[in-house]
Amino acid sequence: MTERLLVIGGNAAGMSCASQARRLRDSGDLEIEVVEAGQWISYSNCGIPYWVGGEVDDVDALIARTPAAFAEQDISIRLGTRAEAIDVDAATVTARSVDGNAQSGDRRTTLAYDWLMIATGATPLRPPVEGLDAEGVFGAQTIPDGEAIRRALDQQPKRAVVLGGGYIGLEMAEALVNQGVSVTVVLADPLPMSSLDEDMGERVCAAMTSMGIDMRPCEPVRGIEVQGGLARAVVTDEGSYPADLVVLGLGVRPNSDLARDAGLRIGTTKGIEVDDTMVASAQNQVYAAGDCIQTRNRITGHPVAIALGTHANRQGRVAGTNIGGRPARFDGVLGTAVTKVGNCEIGRTGLSTREAVQAGYSIETTVIESTVKAGYYPNAGDVTVKLLTEKHTQRMLGGQIVGGTGSAKRIDVLATAIWAQLTAAEFASVDISYAPPFSPTFDAVVLAARKAAGR
Amino acid sequence: MTERLLVIGGNAAGMSCASQARRLRDSGDLEIEVVEAGQWISYSNCGIPYWVGGEVDDVDALIARTPAAFAEQDISIRLGTRAEAIDVDAATVTARSVDGNAQSGDRRTTLAYDWLMIATGATPLRPPVEGLDAEGVFGAQTIPDGEAIRRALDQQPKRAVVLGGGYIGLEMAEALVNQGVSVTVVLADPLPMSSLDEDMGERVCAAMTSMGIDMRPCEPVRGIEVQGGLARAVVTDEGSYPADLVVLGLGVRPNSDLARDAGLRIGTTKGIEVDDTMVASAQNQVYAAGDCIQTRNRITGHPVAIALGTHANRQGRVAGTNIGGRPARFDGVLGTAVTKVGNCEIGRTGLSTREAVQAGYSIETTVIESTVKAGYYPNAGDVTVKLLTEKHTQRMLGGQIVGGTGSAKRIDVLATAIWAQLTAAEFASVDISYAPPFSPTFDAVVLAARKAAGR
Repeated sequence: MTERLLVIGGNAAGMSCASQARRLRDSGDLEIEVVEAGQWISYSNCGIPYWVGGEVDDVDALIARTPAAFAEQDISIRLGTRAEAIDVDAATVTARSVDGNAQSGDRRTTLAYDWLMIATGATPLRPPVEGLDAEGVFGAQTIPDGEAIRRALDQQPKRAVVLGGGYIGLEMAEALVNQGVSVTVVLADPLPMSSLDEDMGERVCAAMTSMGIDMRPCEPVRGIEVQGGLARAVVTDEGSYPADLVVLGLGVRPNSDLARDAGLRIGTTKGIEVDDTMVASAQNQVYAAGDCIQTRNRITGHPVAIALGTHANRQGRVAGTNIGGRPARFDGVLGTAVTKVGNCEIGRTGLSTREAVQAGYSIETTVIESTVKAGYYPNAGDVTVKLLTEKHTQRMLGGQIVGGTGSAKRIDVLATAIWAQLTAAEFASVDISYAPPFSPTFDAVVLAARKAAGR
Repeated sequence: MTERLLVIGGNAAGMSCASQARRLRDSGDLEIEVVEAGQWISYSNCGIPYWVGGEVDDVDALIARTPAAFAEQDISIRLGTRAEAIDVDAATVTARSVDGNAQSGDRRTTLAYDWLMIATGATPLRPPVEGLDAEGVFGAQTIPDGEAIRRALDQQPKRAVVLGGGYIGLEMAEALVNQGVSVTVVLADPLPMSSLDEDMGERVCAAMTSMGIDMRPCEPVRGIEVQGGLARAVVTDEGSYPADLVVLGLGVRPNSDLARDAGLRIGTTKGIEVDDTMVASAQNQVYAAGDCIQTRNRITGHPVAIALGTHANRQGRVAGTNIGGRPARFDGVLGTAVTKVGNCEIGRTGLSTREAVQAGYSIETTVIESTVKAGYYPNAGDVTVKLLTEKHTQRMLGGQIVGGTGSAKRIDVLATAIWAQLTAAEFASVDISYAPPFSPTFDAVVLAARKAAGR
């Protein structure tokens, strides 16, 4: 008998799950249907800032696979269809057409499933202030968000305020600078990139300031000044910052309401609770993955909710493998991430000092300042590497990198070492490559480990 | 009583040893003297091609530390002093002044030691053909080599032939192309970069050809045509290649004659045999390190002689630590290396297919073609990753990368995974970073491991 997989949400986690399940089970064995509230599936949210910034011209470039391509694999897609309720006992989902066509009415439909995948993603955080709904205030997560900002840029705005200094905040600040807009970044925190330690965040802040970005730390937004329905300025306790457009970069929260309303367990992080096989409810064959779930930190074992495309893809694939009939587990996350703002690259993995201390580790930190290439080689930008090690075992717990072009991807070396539970001394012994166009004789990550091991 | 450390050879291995020994023992406890046959110490041999190519203007930039800087640390340097014989029983070294000043005569001196460090390096291989001693034939390892080539470039030569296609051959070919010289590379092997598998070497060969380099594989050099004492052409079985200058890039052999004559054991690789503490003769407190020794491959345990600056530095440091009174071991090598020719970057680590088969491993190979950045991001160059895994255990044994700008340093991630003895499946699970300016959603190294694990 043919079973039926229903996927709620057509992006990284959902489509990875669908594709992987299809690889393992053919359409005579498993029907796969995806419901997606929006009009786009399977695209790179992470690419939106580069589309806004002009590095990418054509939105089609951001689309990994079209509905037609999925149809060829017998994965059917219902766009403009929002899941409104899950009945886990009946194994049905109630969905509503949201295609915006008033004449088509308020079409509700009930979809039955044998396997359910919840991949509802995350929603940008909105500060509890007035004026956020005004025209001229933009999210930066979706293709419609990007389209709206690009339309706004056609009006040649002079000034923009970005709220928040996380990945999206930084990338949108860079994009707007690239488009010739004067940018102010308004932060509630003392520094951008709160996933870094303060000494590293300070370097990022300095780099942004040197790009001409007006950094306003410790100024939580208090309101948006609106004139004629249009956002005109962002107000903080310190002042009012004129803005022709305002971009939200305050992070996201898991979209777990649908799962909660269905009686599924929600974790302390507000993400859906799943086990290592991505199961949210074993009895009912309900899976969940991506930005909407709670996962666990690989080092501490503690629950975390981190919205990153790689995690979503991996988790979706694990769910799809299990639904496909092969056992698979998700091994947790280090929260490894890279980004850039102008020529300042940023990488981080594992625990920050705050996270390590919260988790009860006794740690030591080591900072190395070096260059990305041999010091004498042209364009050898600076790089700073910070390494966190456990005090007595010298086990590596976290790494942070801020530096010039070519520096950030070194974070993967630290991530691999941390994943493999190497000590600083063990990692310092690894035979790492060297040639003048690529690094000094000893790469900054090796020097950091050597210094940490030498204590 | 003050002891005395004598170091033969003033570059990577020798000076790392001297510096590390000094860090651990002060000059009242340990005198340190270095004898160096040449006029330069502590410089980047690996930087010579970039000095020749014009990326680096000033030779001083290649010098890590001057004799004066070492003198401040109470490390004394005798330049132009060649060690001619070691008497391990008497614990003395006979050295001769080779400063080229005829009037100073043939000054011999006998130096006593308590600890001896042999760091005599390696010598460029010279094919057994006539004409190699002609003017216009250059090595590319030392500062005098580089000076000679730069003087030759002042004559605005039109055509150069590079003999050999290893690191030095590639880097010198690039340097000469950058200086506007037409370059022919004459190879005995079928492909450049014999430390790569053939399918990867082919990509390097194609990249070099597309730079306008005339590649002549399978043509061992048979002679140098000389006119009026000057090299004019390189002759092979296939033809004669006119050359205003000829550069030797045929690899090196360990300078182990001095050690052999002293009765020290020489390995099958022609390198000096040492143990993991860099001891060549325990009874006599004789150490050796760097290009002159035989070390061991970390994976196979087999003896290898690989001339790489990182190894030399690490080994010298291990020797210096032991001489300094703290136990230290060298953990073997993966032969991790990177280089570039034009925009083609190359990285390799661990075993090649040939090496793995020779060592008796049953292997599988996996090749992934991807991009260095997200496919839609500007200047997302191609990258090919090849992964070697052991057939039954799926343990990672080797990695090779050929690709555009930004690709090669990924080899460090593979080196770390191989060092930590991860399987392909374990490495495929590592939380590796992603953002569009830095990689596709899954980095090519992860895709390669995933594909290998999926067999």
